[in-house]
Amino acid sequence: MSRPLIFVTNDDSLHAKGIASLVEAARPFGDIVVIAPDKPQSGMGHAITIHDPLRLYPEHLFDGIEAYSCSGTPVDCVKLGVYEILHRKPDLLLSGINHGSNASTNVLYSGTMSAAVEGAMEHIPSIGFSLDNFDHEADFSAAKLVAAKVISTVLANGLPTGVCLNVNIPNVLPTDLKGIKVCRQAYAFWEDRFDKRIDPSGKSYYWLTGNFDMKEDSVDSDLYYLANGYATVVPTQFDLTAHSAINSLNEQFS
Amino acid sequence: MSRPLIFVTNDDSLHAKGIASLVEAARPFGDIVVIAPDKPQSGMGHAITIHDPLRLYPEHLFDGIEAYSCSGTPVDCVKLGVYEILHRKPDLLLSGINHGSNASTNVLYSGTMSAAVEGAMEHIPSIGFSLDNFDHEADFSAAKLVAAKVISTVLANGLPTGVCLNVNIPNVLPTDLKGIKVCRQAYAFWEDRFDKRIDPSGKSYYWLTGNFDMKEDSVDSDLYYLANGYATVVPTQFDLTAHSAINSLNEQFS
Repeated sequence: MSRPLIFVTNDDSLHAKGIASLVEAARPFGDIVVIAPDKPQSGMGHAITIHDPLRLYPEHLFDGIEAYSCSGTPVDCVKLGVYEILHRKPDLLLSGINHGSNASTNVLYSGTMSAAVEGAMEHIPSIGFSLDNFDHEADFSAAKLVAAKVISTVLANGLPTGVCLNVNIPNVLPTDLKGIKVCRQAYAFWEDRFDKRIDPSGKSYYWLTGNFDMKEDSVDSDLYYLANGYATVVPTQFDLTAHSAINSLNEQFS
Repeated sequence: MSRPLIFVTNDDSLHAKGIASLVEAARPFGDIVVIAPDKPQSGMGHAITIHDPLRLYPEHLFDGIEAYSCSGTPVDCVKLGVYEILHRKPDLLLSGINHGSNASTNVLYSGTMSAAVEGAMEHIPSIGFSLDNFDHEADFSAAKLVAAKVISTVLANGLPTGVCLNVNIPNVLPTDLKGIKVCRQAYAFWEDRFDKRIDPSGKSYYWLTGNFDMKEDSVDSDLYYLANGYATVVPTQFDLTAHSAINSLNEQFS
């Protein structure tokens, strides 16, 4: 039996410590091809590039591993990788390890997770990994242990159709990790604020900033378990239909 | 009782025919403020701008209506609009009318729909409208009728918490419109292809292209009803958790 073909991408760029950590964690499990953005693409969500052409260049960054930088978004990387580089579906798509949590509604803004969601749409078992630490030099040792466990579990069991995994790892030492919990996305949101400034020519501009704010006192969400030292796994789907609302709305429109 | 405050945005830019059509359709229902991208932002999904500052300029495009152009994405427009222009939640957020369908999984790539999803996250009743015609000069007359009906229904009844509406209108004359159906997102995907070309300096580049392909023979999805002459309304949520997969996955990880 041939070794699994593992596609690795991220949104922090090919030069981030997190993707190097993911390549290390995945290396024992199969043959790896890396296709990742040539510059940071955090917050790009499910964006695709349709008004500009895309560039793809071979890179020699990971010992013995085929790698490419892409001028586009994480979702562009998945599409270009599958259709122009691999010419077949990989056995596994891994995205990350993101520098910073993608728990709760951050899944919507995250390029890392959108790459995994795109993988699920392509019928590829797909997993996004994020460490709850934004630092460029963050310690990924606990995250690598979790990644190895999740990769081996998904290779052994597969994933339900239309579902990828959103894995978040707390910023703890491996010895302090409590375990892994599969759970739901927390109900929490950014309380946005804008930092308004004046440029040298006298025109105003804004920086998006804000605080992430938990809206619930639940004990079964990803934010709850992360805060309590667990790595969290949220099964994540691309069907956004609020099925339970269909009947009552149909009555209003009939 | 004061008139409803209606926030209008889109992803095709402030200069698109679709947003002018939406302003016309919404005008009888309340006081309108428009904040929309200064250039086309199709396919930007839920992207936000965090590596660049944002610009916001007053524009005089719609008779008697406060309007602004924004240098960012549709989701940036929602955040800037709510926190820097309105300084309160509007009573309704309308996005579109998009030039081109956002039915099925197009909801994930769509800047138009991501603005509506962001509105739902801000607890604003939010609706995205899209016409199944990409032409710059498309005929929005049927779309305007549907928009008026949906706006009045949502103003009268509100929307379930955490749910916005993805409204798609078929490319037909008003007299040929069969009605409005509330239904689910179809299971369909882009069969991606890349058009590879060589630039004048001899380097290769790619244009993303492809065909949208229906994967099911269902009679209850948005693509089915659109193809049969109905406007479709898909209740759309930002909770991406695949709740039904939690228990079985927890067994695998325990």
